[in-house]
Amino acid sequence: MAETMAAVPNDVMERLRAAIDDNFNDQVAFLQKMVQFRSLRGEEEPLQQWLAAQFEKRGYKVDQFSLADVDLMSHPKAAPMDTIPLEGSRQVVATLDGGGKGRSLILQGHVDVVPEGPVDLWADAPFEAIVRDGWMIGRGAQDMKAGVSAMIFALDAIKRAGFAPDGRIHLETVTEEESTGNGALSTLMRGYTADACLIPEPTGHTLSRAQVGAIWFRLRVRGTPVHVAYSETGTSAILSAMHLVRAFQDYTAELNARAISNKWFGAIKNPIKFNVGIIKGGDWASSTPAWCEVDCRLGLLPGSTPAEAMKGIEQCLADAQKNDSFLSSNPAELIWSGFQADPSVCEPGSAAEAALAAIHERVFEKPLEDRMSTAVNDTRYYAVDYGIPALCYGPYGVGPHAFDERVDLDSVRKTTLSIALFVAQWCGLKAL
Amino acid sequence: MAETMAAVPNDVMERLRAAIDDNFNDQVAFLQKMVQFRSLRGEEEPLQQWLAAQFEKRGYKVDQFSLADVDLMSHPKAAPMDTIPLEGSRQVVATLDGGGKGRSLILQGHVDVVPEGPVDLWADAPFEAIVRDGWMIGRGAQDMKAGVSAMIFALDAIKRAGFAPDGRIHLETVTEEESTGNGALSTLMRGYTADACLIPEPTGHTLSRAQVGAIWFRLRVRGTPVHVAYSETGTSAILSAMHLVRAFQDYTAELNARAISNKWFGAIKNPIKFNVGIIKGGDWASSTPAWCEVDCRLGLLPGSTPAEAMKGIEQCLADAQKNDSFLSSNPAELIWSGFQADPSVCEPGSAAEAALAAIHERVFEKPLEDRMSTAVNDTRYYAVDYGIPALCYGPYGVGPHAFDERVDLDSVRKTTLSIALFVAQWCGLKAL
Repeated sequence: MAETMAAVPNDVMERLRAAIDDNFNDQVAFLQKMVQFRSLRGEEEPLQQWLAAQFEKRGYKVDQFSLADVDLMSHPKAAPMDTIPLEGSRQVVATLDGGGKGRSLILQGHVDVVPEGPVDLWADAPFEAIVRDGWMIGRGAQDMKAGVSAMIFALDAIKRAGFAPDGRIHLETVTEEESTGNGALSTLMRGYTADACLIPEPTGHTLSRAQVGAIWFRLRVRGTPVHVAYSETGTSAILSAMHLVRAFQDYTAELNARAISNKWFGAIKNPIKFNVGIIKGGDWASSTPAWCEVDCRLGLLPGSTPAEAMKGIEQCLADAQKNDSFLSSNPAELIWSGFQADPSVCEPGSAAEAALAAIHERVFEKPLEDRMSTAVNDTRYYAVDYGIPALCYGPYGVGPHAFDERVDLDSVRKTTLSIALFVAQWCGLKAL
Repeated sequence: MAETMAAVPNDVMERLRAAIDDNFNDQVAFLQKMVQFRSLRGEEEPLQQWLAAQFEKRGYKVDQFSLADVDLMSHPKAAPMDTIPLEGSRQVVATLDGGGKGRSLILQGHVDVVPEGPVDLWADAPFEAIVRDGWMIGRGAQDMKAGVSAMIFALDAIKRAGFAPDGRIHLETVTEEESTGNGALSTLMRGYTADACLIPEPTGHTLSRAQVGAIWFRLRVRGTPVHVAYSETGTSAILSAMHLVRAFQDYTAELNARAISNKWFGAIKNPIKFNVGIIKGGDWASSTPAWCEVDCRLGLLPGSTPAEAMKGIEQCLADAQKNDSFLSSNPAELIWSGFQADPSVCEPGSAAEAALAAIHERVFEKPLEDRMSTAVNDTRYYAVDYGIPALCYGPYGVGPHAFDERVDLDSVRKTTLSIALFVAQWCGLKAL
């Protein structure tokens, strides 16, 4: 596939740029509307329905389906869904196919967002999508509704400039990126493949060269509750959980010590992150707690598999319990609660990357840099499981998963141009 | 008050014993009914209404009032109620006053129970009050509905045996014993005092000689959430909370090292208990948690005051935060969330204790033993604040605050006789 491609002519680039600029107020309003949908996990459906309607309005062929409509759990890479019903997790694939001979492309973005956390810690309301000083503020504005707006408005700009892509394009909005990846996987199982894939996650205009994998697990610890007056005869599930958390912190330090020899992440300090994201336990201040649950996330590096990482987690837990007088006979329950995500590398040298690099340099007037990502994104399924070159490249923002998450709107504009030009370069354009 | 009392005649004792035995099936049914009310904190009202009706049926003068009906928060010993509304916390005081010249007595028990915890960890349903092998099983069966049934049926037995107490009796069922003590305090503020008080908590037929105090506090810790990919730039509220818990564990060890010189508790190993009873934090496995709350309980010994203990807690927290790079500039919020309970000593030598000791020896054929309690009970208000000799003495059971809590029904029967005889001894009886 690495044949030389003719560069997109300058005048086409300028027509696309003008179309994006002309339409940018609408794009910002569109992005605001998206952010105003509080599309937490399991609550994405209203936004997906709205997006499907937007795609239909544009004349795209729209396929809406849920995770229950594919035989999801038969796939070896499907991750456990915890308590989220498959039926309610809707995917949208809009197809533009003018029957041209150009290469095909998947443009994909996720619409699920992580919880906003305590609202009083935000300076602005997290779902109002306030625009101030060139930023749009809100949960999901950066991660990754800005990128979704960019891929949609890139195609709009191509049409507005008087062109159509010369290859088949699947424009996809998916769920579950923040928890399992099953949304992306389901689109592939539904049959949507292409010659390349671009996912405009907020990479700050870098190419995500390599990314970690991640495992989600829940520890369900029991205790023997007694009145605090006799606390030495009971065992606190909360203190047992703290013991296990410390064991996983130590284990993570060991993993990171070994990581210095990793081909991709050797230069990154502590690339493997262990996170205790949620904790809940106990019912009464004066009773030793009978139960405690902790939701954890542990990364893994290219060169290792989720199965190996899960085995390591099991071993760490077993070791931590072995010498504990209570846990050795009352082991914590280990629940695989989401991500079983492969690490993934965007192998250098693909034609898709060459096309993106050329385009990026024209838009930003500097070379495309890559970066190692200590987070997970959906490109792994395309690259690892379906052999589709998959690029993760998108706008700049600050505070993914944090308070006061925001995206730089000028960056969104430039990313939209990058994507439009990438479509032109990769698929080719034909005049309308 | 330590004048010599004539012993209750043997034939009176036997008539009381027979009356209790004759009525014991009804007492067990009554206790079952009480246990079947799930009278968790804030949910005691249906049980209190039912009890008030039972007292009215017996012809007692019944006063029902809520914590909002006394000027509770004006009292220096009132403890914070957290989110529980004063209006919904109902107290019941039934008075029997035949105008006799005997000593007056308060018989008091609490009807609030602690949460049952995960039901799957119980062998039997926690609110069915199953009777098996001489035990009644259920949350609150032991702590302390058995004692409440004993004080009610002791008075029933006196009547059934053809007598009436010769002194005024207040039969009281209160709330809030497990969280603040405000129920007991409100009865005193309402004007109910007497020459002695007996609280039949499940002491296993011992006299609670000295008891600790307790402080409840909540630590509300914040964090700076970020995507786990950048966890080194955020701070986990859960890990910060764990840091503070460890600091309080160390502080408790210091307090216990000093406790060996305590007059009452010097011989008890680690009499000061620190408990983390409830923990909640975070919203997402892959975000560093922005918030974590822990509900804690710390004991204090006779010779110290709640104010001193609270100052110690503040100092421990300040010290733990001082050297932490995040907490030093983002200190946890410290919330006084319930108990600010005085430690209390049942001073030896009272006439009330002498009466109880004499009675106990006749019922159980062995001397009354005392014990040091590392838990709190309501006697402290009577003893510390109102100068009323207050005895804590009641039945035997296992598992207060634990799974499979149960009370020994034969012990309930004997305790009922002890209480009936104590009323006879303390107040005197007159023939009906």
